[in-house]
Amino acid sequence: MSTAWIPRYAHRAKGVGSSAIRELLKVTSKPGVISFAGGLPSPDAFPLQRFEEACHKVLAEQAARALQYGTTEGHEPLRELIARNMARYGITAKLENVMITSGSQQALDLIGKLFINRGDRVLIEAPTYLGALQAFNAYGAEYISVPIDGDGLITEMLEKPLRSGPKFMYVLPNFQNPAGTTLIEGRRHELVLLADKYGIPIVEDDPYGQLRYEGEHIPPLVVIDRENLRRDNGYSIGNVIYLSTFSKTLAPGLRLGWIVAPPEIITKLVQLKQATDLHTSTFNKYVAYEVARDGFLDQHVKLIRGLYRERRDVMLEALKEFFPPEVTWTHPQGGLFLWVNLPEGVDSRTILEAALRENVAFVPGNSFYANADDEACRHMRLNFSNATPEQIREGIRRLSLAVGSNLLSSCA
Amino acid sequence: MSTAWIPRYAHRAKGVGSSAIRELLKVTSKPGVISFAGGLPSPDAFPLQRFEEACHKVLAEQAARALQYGTTEGHEPLRELIARNMARYGITAKLENVMITSGSQQALDLIGKLFINRGDRVLIEAPTYLGALQAFNAYGAEYISVPIDGDGLITEMLEKPLRSGPKFMYVLPNFQNPAGTTLIEGRRHELVLLADKYGIPIVEDDPYGQLRYEGEHIPPLVVIDRENLRRDNGYSIGNVIYLSTFSKTLAPGLRLGWIVAPPEIITKLVQLKQATDLHTSTFNKYVAYEVARDGFLDQHVKLIRGLYRERRDVMLEALKEFFPPEVTWTHPQGGLFLWVNLPEGVDSRTILEAALRENVAFVPGNSFYANADDEACRHMRLNFSNATPEQIREGIRRLSLAVGSNLLSSCA
Repeated sequence: MSTAWIPRYAHRAKGVGSSAIRELLKVTSKPGVISFAGGLPSPDAFPLQRFEEACHKVLAEQAARALQYGTTEGHEPLRELIARNMARYGITAKLENVMITSGSQQALDLIGKLFINRGDRVLIEAPTYLGALQAFNAYGAEYISVPIDGDGLITEMLEKPLRSGPKFMYVLPNFQNPAGTTLIEGRRHELVLLADKYGIPIVEDDPYGQLRYEGEHIPPLVVIDRENLRRDNGYSIGNVIYLSTFSKTLAPGLRLGWIVAPPEIITKLVQLKQATDLHTSTFNKYVAYEVARDGFLDQHVKLIRGLYRERRDVMLEALKEFFPPEVTWTHPQGGLFLWVNLPEGVDSRTILEAALRENVAFVPGNSFYANADDEACRHMRLNFSNATPEQIREGIRRLSLAVGSNLLSSCA
Repeated sequence: MSTAWIPRYAHRAKGVGSSAIRELLKVTSKPGVISFAGGLPSPDAFPLQRFEEACHKVLAEQAARALQYGTTEGHEPLRELIARNMARYGITAKLENVMITSGSQQALDLIGKLFINRGDRVLIEAPTYLGALQAFNAYGAEYISVPIDGDGLITEMLEKPLRSGPKFMYVLPNFQNPAGTTLIEGRRHELVLLADKYGIPIVEDDPYGQLRYEGEHIPPLVVIDRENLRRDNGYSIGNVIYLSTFSKTLAPGLRLGWIVAPPEIITKLVQLKQATDLHTSTFNKYVAYEVARDGFLDQHVKLIRGLYRERRDVMLEALKEFFPPEVTWTHPQGGLFLWVNLPEGVDSRTILEAALRENVAFVPGNSFYANADDEACRHMRLNFSNATPEQIREGIRRLSLAVGSNLLSSCA
């Protein structure tokens, strides 16, 4: 065995942070472990028959184009389908407002590339999506964190941070990752008005918006923004860049997401994307179009809602049954995650160690903060989409042992 | 019709250059135009039957994994297949040395992200691949250009530029894009020794290496580098980061390329890739593995070589028949492109205007230089892979009219 050899030029490479989650997810792929750690959709929700038909059709009828280089903004029929589908949620976009990305993660990367110079600040929710922090970190972003509560981002606390001039705000209004909370309608209006008042754009990340299990659909920020603008500007989308994805409604393995933005911003993002990867897989765009078309997407989303609603309910019931009364958690109206609040002084990283011994995993809360403190450490993110009801019940039982023993030790 | 509305925050976005080629490629998709402008493989070279079988097999047997989120470094069986395939060209790599990227373009982007801080210099060939300039420009690269001749990069001219401390060298040794030239073996040895002497890594971009139509295989830089290192260091790949792709051997629509580098560099690139797009399409990685496996890739590459060799020969013959004697061109031993040299004082951009009137297109030489001067403008890049022999002959005839009329006018 040769010892690892560090090439002479390794010092030329910029520093890159390591990812604790990445390491954690390796552990959780061990057989026998029930994992609430990832953010994976259930494979039971992949429409296999439809994929099979779509691949066959694309290869039989359109292979010369579907396997070739394509345009950076993406296959027009798919972008039109996305626009039609978003209209069901109130979002009116034309073809020129929509570009395809390699998942929402690439949208975050391109937005970072476009807006962030080293040292620029981004206003984020605390907690927020870890992958967004990773994407923006690569461009040297710094952060202004504003806390959320059960009604989402606390807009009452925004004015002072906005006056300090962040480059943009990054917000997940629906069934937030990690907390599972939803931004209430009143706050959405306030947020959009504040963005306009201070001229600070909003990046609205909405990967889960279609996966609502209870309550009424709340208009996305991009819709409220547009309504505010309509009187003066004819068609436009103003201060909001909206992101969504097929990862939770078709399959994440396709790596297909999209951005909705004013044409001037789309043009710039398309140029950056061209330099980044030329374009997203043409084949996958053709296949996704064939899978989603003719109303299939809507019908399939209903099936997924039913599947995940049941899993959420099982997790909520099991938490109530097994967890000690000092522990609380959010009640997500949709999405993939819920957020557990441990009593003060309890560190979820210690609980994770105990949990892994019980063969159950989750992600400790500190991962979801730009600057994690003790408060950040007393949370756990639990995913409920990728385990069966039986596994969820058993996993929560095991987790309650890890939590229970730890509460005792912190009191001792 | 509403007038275009510039969002208030557009000024927050960084400047992004426009791409002349992008605009050109739109024109060339017009029916009736014979295009030598793109760098597209022929759809006749897409193995459709094999793709059909692969999609069916992956969906029938491995859908739960192939449609799910995956690892950032990529599907292990595919990485192993790549390593085995590269061994046929002398490149010995272990699993830990190989990562999958969304095409070679993403490899260039990740390398830019890892190495380039604003103002850093990159040593490039003049001319060089336009997409590399676009990828590195996004990170604020500046350039040191070293000219090529018929034997590739002129290594005799390297010492002074290397002493000025570029971050890395970017080199296309085989059938270069745009010039079609191949770096001769003697210069490869010199280049690798110089890289070691000055501690400047080489990024070796090799998208066409498997597509050689005549002459003997020449060891890649990564192989020469390794041989130099072997005496002291056991297994390692030293000063060279090697890039290749399935875009020219299977299909570009998959967006599948790879990087070979020391494990320490792969680890950093994987972390950056995770922040960029999580990972390349899992589905495409599974499908590409099923397509390429069991020797199919090698067998298929032979078929492509035959197809493109004929097209190259037809183009060379047509150039000889139709073009005026003042014009010369390279004789590529492989790849997709040849490079036409016009007499002094002739501007290929003027010829392009005349050519488009004749319904034939190419890319003017200036696009392939970091700092284009008059010399840069007297070249044309011609692609020969994506037109039939009949189209090539007719296209060169049309192009000769545009060239001929322009030579006359520049003499008048």
